Formats: sequence, C-alpha cells, structure tokens
Amino acid sequence: MNTQSYTARRVLPSQQFISAMRQRFGGDFSTAEAVCGQHGRDESAMPPVPPDAVLFAQTTDQVAEAVKLCRAYRVPIIPFGTGTSLEGHLFAIHGGLSIDLSGMNHVLAVRPEDLDATVQAGVTRKRLNNELHGTGLFFPIDPGADASLGGMAATRASGTNAVRYGTMRDNVLGMTVVTADGRIIKTGSRARKSAAGYDLTRLFIGSEGTLGVITELTVRLYPIPEAISAAVCAFPMIADAVNSVIQTIQLGVPVARIELLDAMAIKAINRHSKTALRESPTLFFEFHGSPAGVGEQARAVQSIAGEHGGMDFDWATRPEDRSRLWQARHDAYYACLGLRPGSRALTTDVCVPISRLAECIVESVADVAASGMIAPLVGHVGDGNFHMAILVDPDDSGDLERAHGLSARMVERALRMEGSCTGEHGIGIGKQKYLALEHGEAAIDVMRSVKCALDPDNLMNPGKILPPA
Amino acid sequence: MNTQSYTARRVLPSQQFISAMRQRFGGDFSTAEAVCGQHGRDESAMPPVPPDAVLFAQTTDQVAEAVKLCRAYRVPIIPFGTGTSLEGHLFAIHGGLSIDLSGMNHVLAVRPEDLDATVQAGVTRKRLNNELHGTGLFFPIDPGADASLGGMAATRASGTNAVRYGTMRDNVLGMTVVTADGRIIKTGSRARKSAAGYDLTRLFIGSEGTLGVITELTVRLYPIPEAISAAVCAFPMIADAVNSVIQTIQLGVPVARIELLDAMAIKAINRHSKTALRESPTLFFEFHGSPAGVGEQARAVQSIAGEHGGMDFDWATRPEDRSRLWQARHDAYYACLGLRPGSRALTTDVCVPISRLAECIVESVADVAASGMIAPLVGHVGDGNFHMAILVDPDDSGDLERAHGLSARMVERALRMEGSCTGEHGIGIGKQKYLALEHGEAAIDVMRSVKCALDPDNLMNPGKILPPA
Repeated sequence: MNTQSYTARRVLPSQQFISAMRQRFGGDFSTAEAVCGQHGRDESAMPPVPPDAVLFAQTTDQVAEAVKLCRAYRVPIIPFGTGTSLEGHLFAIHGGLSIDLSGMNHVLAVRPEDLDATVQAGVTRKRLNNELHGTGLFFPIDPGADASLGGMAATRASGTNAVRYGTMRDNVLGMTVVTADGRIIKTGSRARKSAAGYDLTRLFIGSEGTLGVITELTVRLYPIPEAISAAVCAFPMIADAVNSVIQTIQLGVPVARIELLDAMAIKAINRHSKTALRESPTLFFEFHGSPAGVGEQARAVQSIAGEHGGMDFDWATRPEDRSRLWQARHDAYYACLGLRPGSRALTTDVCVPISRLAECIVESVADVAASGMIAPLVGHVGDGNFHMAILVDPDDSGDLERAHGLSARMVERALRMEGSCTGEHGIGIGKQKYLALEHGEAAIDVMRSVKCALDPDNLMNPGKILPPA
Repeated sequence: MNTQSYTARRVLPSQQFISAMRQRFGGDFSTAEAVCGQHGRDESAMPPVPPDAVLFAQTTDQVAEAVKLCRAYRVPIIPFGTGTSLEGHLFAIHGGLSIDLSGMNHVLAVRPEDLDATVQAGVTRKRLNNELHGTGLFFPIDPGADASLGGMAATRASGTNAVRYGTMRDNVLGMTVVTADGRIIKTGSRARKSAAGYDLTRLFIGSEGTLGVITELTVRLYPIPEAISAAVCAFPMIADAVNSVIQTIQLGVPVARIELLDAMAIKAINRHSKTALRESPTLFFEFHGSPAGVGEQARAVQSIAGEHGGMDFDWATRPEDRSRLWQARHDAYYACLGLRPGSRALTTDVCVPISRLAECIVESVADVAASGMIAPLVGHVGDGNFHMAILVDPDDSGDLERAHGLSARMVERALRMEGSCTGEHGIGIGKQKYLALEHGEAAIDVMRSVKCALDPDNLMNPGKILPPA
C-alpha cells in the first residue's frame, strides 16, 4: 500500500491561516517538518501522512479558538493524543492541522466518594492510575498502549478488563467537547444514569475525531478489589483454550480478565520479556473479589479448564508477579514485532458472539497457516474479541497483499458470524470498506446524516470512518 | 395544567391519508374515538391528548410502509408500547398517527450460548422473562410497569437492578429501527463490543420516538445467580438509610438491588399489598452470587446498616417470599396512589452523584413536609436515583401548582449537585424546561442538529424532548 491509495485532494493551508495561528499561539504552533512528521504516523503498517501544522493545545478554550480559525480558513482538524492508534485515524489525508492534546495532561478532580474522576483528554491511562495511588481506586480500561483517555474515548477503546468492567462506552459519565463550529459543549453529568435527551456522550465516543474534539472526560473508577489473583494455564490445542473461555462466560463466572495467546505469541513474549512460559496456547486469567469469591471463581475456572485438557494453573499471587505477567501481556504487540525484525504488523481486530469464537479462531489460524505468514494471536476472548498481528515487510508488496487478503477474509468470517469488523481499534481509514458490510448502506446513510449535521464543512478529521460516498 | 399548555397547531390528517391507510391496513387501522382515547393517555397526572388514528402494527415492514405514508401526507407519528410512560411521551400534541407495537410481541430468538435474545419491540419485560423460563437466564431491567422493551429502549429505562446490571443503555446489543424516511436499518451487531462507526444503538436509545421507530431489539441476558437472597431493613431516620447505601456503594459491594422506601411509601405498600412492614424508612436489598459470595455481601451490608442504626434484617430466602417482596416494591407506585383516592401522581425522577444523595433526599423531604402535600418516596438509591410521587387532585389547580413547585425545586437541587433531571423516565413534554438547564444551550443545539438531520420534516413524535426553539 502506498499513501496514494488513501490521500485525497490536498489543499495547503493559506499563509494567512499560518500567520493567524502563529500570532495567536506563538511557540505552541509549529509547521516544522520534523514535528509534522511525528504527528502523521501511528502504530499501523500504513505509510504515514503528516499534517501541515501542529498545535500543542493547553486548554479547551485554545482548542475552540483553533477550531474557529480552521473553520474560517477551511483547514481540516485532526485531534492527536499519543499516536498509538492502528487504523490511520490520525493521518492527515486531506492535510490540515493536528491538534496535539498531550499537554492537556492534568487530572482535574478525583472524587473517591463518587467513584469518579475528571481529567483532561491528554491524560494517559497509566498517568491516571498513578494519580489514583493511595485512593484505593483504579481505572480499568487498558488498551495495549499507554493511550490518552481522549483518544481512548474517540476510538471506543477497551482492553483486557472489558469482560468485567466494560469499554470506554460504559465508563465515561460525561465529556467536554469542542464542536465543529468551535463551541464548547458539556455532555452527560456526574449522575450514574440519566434519561435526559440524546446520548451525546455515546455519540462522541467512537466518533474518532470526526464530530468534535474531546478535551475533558469524567470517568468511572472502581474500588481495588480486596483480593486479586492471576494465573496462566496452557492447553494442548487452541480450540481447547477457547472452549474453556466459552464455558466460563456462559456460566457467568465474573472473571476480571481472560486473555488468550497462541503458541507463537507466547514465544514472542518469552523472547521479549524474558519469561519462561510453556510455548503452547495459553489463557491468562485474573480474578477480582473477596478472598472467598476469588477462590470460588478460580476453582470454577480450574475445573472448566481441566475438562478441556488445560495443564497446571500457574499462579501469580504476589502483586509484583502479577504486574510482570500483565506487563508481558501488554507488551505482546511489541514482542510480536520482534519475531520478524524490521517488520510492521497489520493487526486484525474482529469480535464475534462467544458461541462462534472457537470456530472463528480455528478457521483464521488455519488460513494464516496456509498463507505462510507469521501472525501471532492474542485476544480478549471473554468478549469474543481477538487480534492477529500479521507481520509484514512494509517494502514487500506481495507480503502486504497476502496480509490484506487474510485480514479481509477474517472480517468477512466475523461478519458471517454476526460479529464486528473491529472490537476496539476503530475504523479510521483501514476498515472503511467493511463498514457498510457490517451495518448496511441505510445505517451508513444515517451516520452520514449525523456527520453532515454536526460538521457541515467536513473539517473534523475528514475522510475517516465513513467511506467516500 | 390543561392540555392547551402543551398542544400545538394541530392539523387533521387528510381524508386521502385515512383512505390510503384503511386500504393498506384494513382492520389494523382505526380512527375510532375510544381507540384513539386509549392511545392518548399515559400514567402521568397530565391530561391526555389522543392521536387522530391508530395503527396496530404486526411487522417491521408495516411500520416502514406506514411511516412512508405519513411522510407523504405530513402526518406525525407517535410510537406506542404499553402506554406506561410518565412524561407525556405519547401525547399526540401535534395530532397524527399512533403506531401501536403491542401486537409485535414475539420473542424471535433466545440464544443461551451467547446470553442474548432478539425480540419484537412490543414484547414486555415480564413476557420475555416468562419465555426464558427453563433456560437458566433472565433479563434484569425492570421499570415499575410491565413495559414493552421497545418503549423501555426509547426512554432509556432502568429499574431496581440497574445498580448491578446497568440500564437499557448497557443491555441492548443492536436494534432494528424504521427511520423517518421509512427505511429499515439495523444498528449494532451480536458482538459484545464494537468500535465500528457511530453508536446508532445508543443514539436511538433514549430518543423517545423522535428519531425513528424501534421495531426489534437484541438484548443481553444473564445467568440466574446460583444464590439469591433478599432482605428488608428499617432505619430510624431516612438519612441513616441513605448513608448506609452510600457506604455500600463506595465500598464496592456488588449488591444487585438496593432500594429505599420512606415511611409513607411503606404505609402505602402495607395497605395495598397486605404486608406488615414496619412503617419506617426502609431499604430493600437483594444479593446475587455464589452461596459464599451472597453470604459475604449480606454480612458486609448488615454491618454497614448496623453502624447507621439499621434495625433487624428481615430475610426473604424462599423464592415465593422474594417474589412477594419485590412485587410489593414494584406495586409501590399504584400503592401510593391509593393513599389519596382519586388522586394522580406527579412523579419526580432526579438522579445525583451518590455523595450528594443524603443531602438531596433530606432537603426534598423537608420541602414536601413544608408544602403539606403527600409525596411518598421510593428510590433506586444505589444509582443515586429517587422518585417522589406527589399526589394531586387533578381538578385542583392549587394542588397542581404546589406539586409543580416541589418538582421544579427538586430538579434544580439535583442539577446544582451535578445530577440529572431524570434518571429513567425521560423528558417527554414534562421535563423539557430542564433540558437546557442540565446540558446547556450549546449541547441542546447539537441535539437539535441531530434531530433535524434524521427527521427533517419533524414528523417523528414531534414536540418531545427538545423544547420549542
């Protein structure tokens, strides 16, 4: 793939716009090539597309002013968090201004008594959890990267805890958003539930910067459980592991995390994180609750795993052992890249109803094997969501073609099974061709109407989510 | 209040429209006064406003055809489920056609292996749970009335289980919706999570028929817990009860239900349901989990209640005792009406952050006492949500004025506390004046843009949610 396949009619911002921005924002505004280059790449295998300029925003008011200037001069706007998205969300395919929110990294309020916190959009998930130290609370959503909460909301992110705690959809109470006309709106409230009008919070969550710029969020927090235990369990065959997951979910065991890694992913982790895990399909578990509750959950899952050929449970009960285990799990993406030095990964992200998960994984693994590609598998299998990181040489067009073929077949397989083409990464430009296949043309038309109503000039991250009409 | 205060320029549907509908739908279409009258009232104290005609729809295709005819003849459309809403949602204030979906009452699929079910919009919550008998699964959302699932989605309903299982927002995976132009769209999928495009499911949930007609829903189901126990506990003062709730939530005890009734509501229930509960502020609890987990939760909550002066826990462990207890709780609304024969209730529905709940309730109770009105209180207090049913003589304008004053002050109090003017009943016409107070004018403008984009002719339940511009 070259950038020509997705770049659009690109009009350079006028000199007047550049001058106006410089005058208003001084050193926080840059058109330097190196700065623009840093803001045009993500963690996908797609060639980067830099913006024409970058604003390092410090406040919601600055974002609103910048949006108004962009509107006056018809300059596209691309919100930027940590640059860790995977589907070209931040590529400036129509050119324009990248609004970097990473400097908006203040935790504005932590309210232990209400189990919530208000943060600026640039606060990352780890930063928030660090700030929560000592409160007895935590924020559970954990995509692989240490992403910003604004970016996580914009892509409807989730991670390993979603099976128990939900996704960003479920954990944002309200937001501050700058709309396409530069107005500042508040969505939601601090109430746990509300039936007051259209759910603008959920409309902006997953909108990938195409409807507005999220600048602040109020998120739910959870008490750190009284007891936590984690374990790994290896299985002879991947279907055995998956069937254990299916049964666990169907029985309603409230596992906090239930993650699958195939033998290849375990091999990658062993190399990268110096672990000594058995190189076999493996489930990573975590149980949260009271000491008795955690014991019950663990016994239930051990019994299920035993019925499916699961080998010994290896427990990590000390906090430092648990942290090491989950850090290794979180580093899986980077570890997998190490299996083929110099490679990039085309990362798939399908999600299917749990009853179809074994079938979907087994067929996908067989398809990869037949292709001769290397594509380790990791998955948030409790949600029916899994990823394969198809390793490609970015300069080998045959490689890219094979990878895209695998990915396309995987999506079609998931959609045949009433699933989704993306569980948590979003659409960006990488998945646009599947949007209508998943939702139907009529639903896409409704999405287009919403986009057109909220961003009539098509300046908010144009060319993302919705395929060209 | 008389109907003049909220009816609008009303244009009778043309004879051509009536003929076209009659020709197409035969006996399923009616303009009979009695039929229209039945479709113009809800359970609020507001005077009814009947539609001009009613269609008893049997299929999604019929709804789509009716919407197209309405569009051609510019006739407003009001979706109708069971008529149990509380804010005038179904009043035909611009006239038009009521589409009664109660005949679409088929459970289309139950998939125990995926913990989901697909139902037509007219299926009520009790009907669904009856159909689930023997599967080991249940659907938890339980507003007081035996409402239809379509109506529950349209008003973003919840009930007593929301503290543990969430609201309709969290429990609908996908829907079939007829849009304002008569097209049939599918939103969502059967995947547990998805990051594929705008969240149309959540956009239609809570839209109160103003964006489209929900005709089918796929909802989440849950395994019936291995162990369930329920209890009631009386407290000397209402603040003691509320403080017990606050502490329970803050400690993360996963109670399934935690409901407050004040002494007046208990008195009403005792009369109506022939119970013999102590007429004192009382919490109703339910615990779900394993036998050990339920025991732990119960002990934790008993200890908290004990610290706040809670009197003995009265346990209902046999299923029939539990059912009787919760039936009494669900009948509270009707029981309260019985406190003042011939009265109607103006039901309030505020929701505040849990840390403000005691303050909000105590101030509201004092305000009622000062007014001399009768207004028993019931609440889903684990969510920070409570209702007072202010009993009014519908023919006494002084009564109505006092009730509206109490209600307005309660909403203003909740909004000052960063809460919501409605936790679960919705806006309808009753709460429009508070929408901008809660969300701000700019957010209301965004809602208006969405409405205008999806329903440019303003035919979908016109005049609801959004206040006149």
